[in-house]
Amino acid sequence: MEERLQQQINFILETDKLKNVIRRNFLSDDSRRENTAEHSWHSILLAQIFFEYAENKSELDLLHIIKMITVHDLVEIYAGDTFIFDETGYEDKFERENAAAKKLFSLLPGNQAEEYYALWLEFEREETPDAIYACSIDKIMPVMLNTYSKGTSWREANITSEQVFRTLKVLEKGPTTVWNLLHQLVKISEKKQNLM
Amino acid sequence: MEERLQQQINFILETDKLKNVIRRNFLSDDSRRENTAEHSWHSILLAQIFFEYAENKSELDLLHIIKMITVHDLVEIYAGDTFIFDETGYEDKFERENAAAKKLFSLLPGNQAEEYYALWLEFEREETPDAIYACSIDKIMPVMLNTYSKGTSWREANITSEQVFRTLKVLEKGPTTVWNLLHQLVKISEKKQNLM
Repeated sequence: MEERLQQQINFILETDKLKNVIRRNFLSDDSRRENTAEHSWHSILLAQIFFEYAENKSELDLLHIIKMITVHDLVEIYAGDTFIFDETGYEDKFERENAAAKKLFSLLPGNQAEEYYALWLEFEREETPDAIYACSIDKIMPVMLNTYSKGTSWREANITSEQVFRTLKVLEKGPTTVWNLLHQLVKISEKKQNLM
Repeated sequence: MEERLQQQINFILETDKLKNVIRRNFLSDDSRRENTAEHSWHSILLAQIFFEYAENKSELDLLHIIKMITVHDLVEIYAGDTFIFDETGYEDKFERENAAAKKLFSLLPGNQAEEYYALWLEFEREETPDAIYACSIDKIMPVMLNTYSKGTSWREANITSEQVFRTLKVLEKGPTTVWNLLHQLVKISEKKQNLM
């Protein structure tokens, strides 16, 4: 096998482990917690469906956004999933995930290793228009599942509406429709007592 | 909630069911069978990593390819997964999946329903350069997992190398590197007795 191709195959096989990284939130049918590979796919789909709501489409590159969503959670293979409301876990989240990113992406051939590390970092920084859109989608997705399921991951941690707004404040910079949707979902969740 | 947005949310919630559609092949660690949402995500990642091998890049649109890969398996929510070597199941596969596509995509607002049905149909027909590339990726992915795991889904059905080449002949029209890779993976699988 040619070396470059073998490196790419090794990377693809290593990333198979994302299917065994378990997130906090449940599927909408409450049957089990979601894994991160599933979440990544669902977010890629939502990024396409909601793209029409981006007010700054001329600044955005949907392919680049999807690339970011495809890879940004891969670091969880080594760093684990950090619950978005876990303030202690968030303290060293960047350091843990940065080390994981360097380790994982170094499996790839040099130019692809650089490209994927850069995609991961851009997403984490939440600064570019593409990253802000990608983050909005990535973060509204579990709110949707928590709202329309029994919201077990919120209930078991006694999450409040105030915590949701504080933790997801990046959504204010994304599409207005998505920011407004967050408010509507929180209202439904309060009524169902999924949120305190 | 605005009607268009509510339709999109209903679609996203319905597609959550793809996470419970179980495919025949196992994860590379042999721990369990893969589900279709995971497979879709992994194929989207592979489409990016292998894009450099497409000889006809100027004819290809990677965003369009990824959109096809994101949605083409959604029909399995109603039609179930058909094992690629199940010749009887393949006889009415198109009819079953076509009905499923019409049902599922009609949850979306009109223009998006049309767009996604067209993406599904283009993938199924395996005719356009984008569809041929997308199919190559979608089909080499489980071969990779079957080769580097114990290949249980092949072993339990006594799959032969000849069946693999016959069933995956669309790969001959895709990137040469992927077509050659298929031959290399089959050779490894024969040695491991994953293939008969």
